[in-house]
Amino acid sequence: MSKLVVRSFSVSLDGFGAGPGQSLENPLGAGGPEMFGWFFPTRTFKETLKQPGEGETGVDDDFAREGFANIGAWILGRNMFGPVRGPWPDESWKGWWGEEPPYHCPVFVLTHHARRPLAMKGGTEFRFVTGGIREALEQAQAAAGGKDVRVGGGAATIRQYLAERLLDELHLVLSPVFLGQGEPLFQGLDLRALGYACEKHVPGKRAVSHLLLRRK
Amino acid sequence: MSKLVVRSFSVSLDGFGAGPGQSLENPLGAGGPEMFGWFFPTRTFKETLKQPGEGETGVDDDFAREGFANIGAWILGRNMFGPVRGPWPDESWKGWWGEEPPYHCPVFVLTHHARRPLAMKGGTEFRFVTGGIREALEQAQAAAGGKDVRVGGGAATIRQYLAERLLDELHLVLSPVFLGQGEPLFQGLDLRALGYACEKHVPGKRAVSHLLLRRK
Repeated sequence: MSKLVVRSFSVSLDGFGAGPGQSLENPLGAGGPEMFGWFFPTRTFKETLKQPGEGETGVDDDFAREGFANIGAWILGRNMFGPVRGPWPDESWKGWWGEEPPYHCPVFVLTHHARRPLAMKGGTEFRFVTGGIREALEQAQAAAGGKDVRVGGGAATIRQYLAERLLDELHLVLSPVFLGQGEPLFQGLDLRALGYACEKHVPGKRAVSHLLLRRK
Repeated sequence: MSKLVVRSFSVSLDGFGAGPGQSLENPLGAGGPEMFGWFFPTRTFKETLKQPGEGETGVDDDFAREGFANIGAWILGRNMFGPVRGPWPDESWKGWWGEEPPYHCPVFVLTHHARRPLAMKGGTEFRFVTGGIREALEQAQAAAGGKDVRVGGGAATIRQYLAERLLDELHLVLSPVFLGQGEPLFQGLDLRALGYACEKHVPGKRAVSHLLLRRK
């Protein structure tokens, strides 16, 4: 059955999913890239983002690769798609990823402002959803053809799906950094009351912990 | 040089140092004991708290044992000492630990209500400090004879020492549980701005992570 999942989402020790001050130059916020020290060296990152070098294999790469397996559609919060806020001034912003984004399937972007679908190279199509997280989920599941739907983030979007118990599984990567400020992932959410528990815990390289959370 | 340290302090995945609803029956709050799944089986716990059984050795026991090494005095928040709130009705409450507490040195208890020192078996003496965290620290360091001073908790007490950058090192044990509610350890504290960083990360048994934080 098609699941709604989060995969490879990095969290700081103090519970932030992104640093403060996201911008065009700093899409992960201040300090944010430090949380991806486990991901950038992996072979999966290098292949998926077409970066130079072979990349490392091993436990972190296994998790990163698993994160792209059996995914038929993605859901992104608008800030994951880009730094533009408010009404779209035009259609020139096409995401952070260049002409060929790493998704290769339909990607549903949550926004308050309608926009025409945007087909990119390699099979990624950005579709803009103005009706909220349940509408995005319905559309994504219909488009996923029985595969899973991955919520890419950011933290605010994941929180919305958690609060409504819509997520089946989350693979989080707890990174040994403090951001101090930013976008909290858990704060004010009672994960225990919502029925989520940590089912698996695998130490990675570079002092990260891979956590698998599942809804009971 | 004498350091001010936290050792073996358990934290949940959602950042709580104790569960909600602490009471005489439930000194760690609802769900709190789940965070000590790494500690209860250790040889150090069994020896220190005089529990039956030999107890396990290994990485968790190493950390637990290290937590008692070279400690010349302790500081506890009042709730760590007992469930009594407000003025002391009498001197009958003598801590959670029975006649011979596991400290074997002076223990400074933060309280708003004066009380005479309380000498226990085995060298533990509870001394009650009404002048706040800096006064407790001064008295504890004077009593420690050059050894380190350990802040035993709870979360609110550790937060006060963190906010004033008085702690030199913290050994935290991140446990794979969600408490959902309780006493937050980091929330609203900017550890990054305060100059704390995670220096070491050691996977333990039972899916915990031992973190060593140090002030820069």
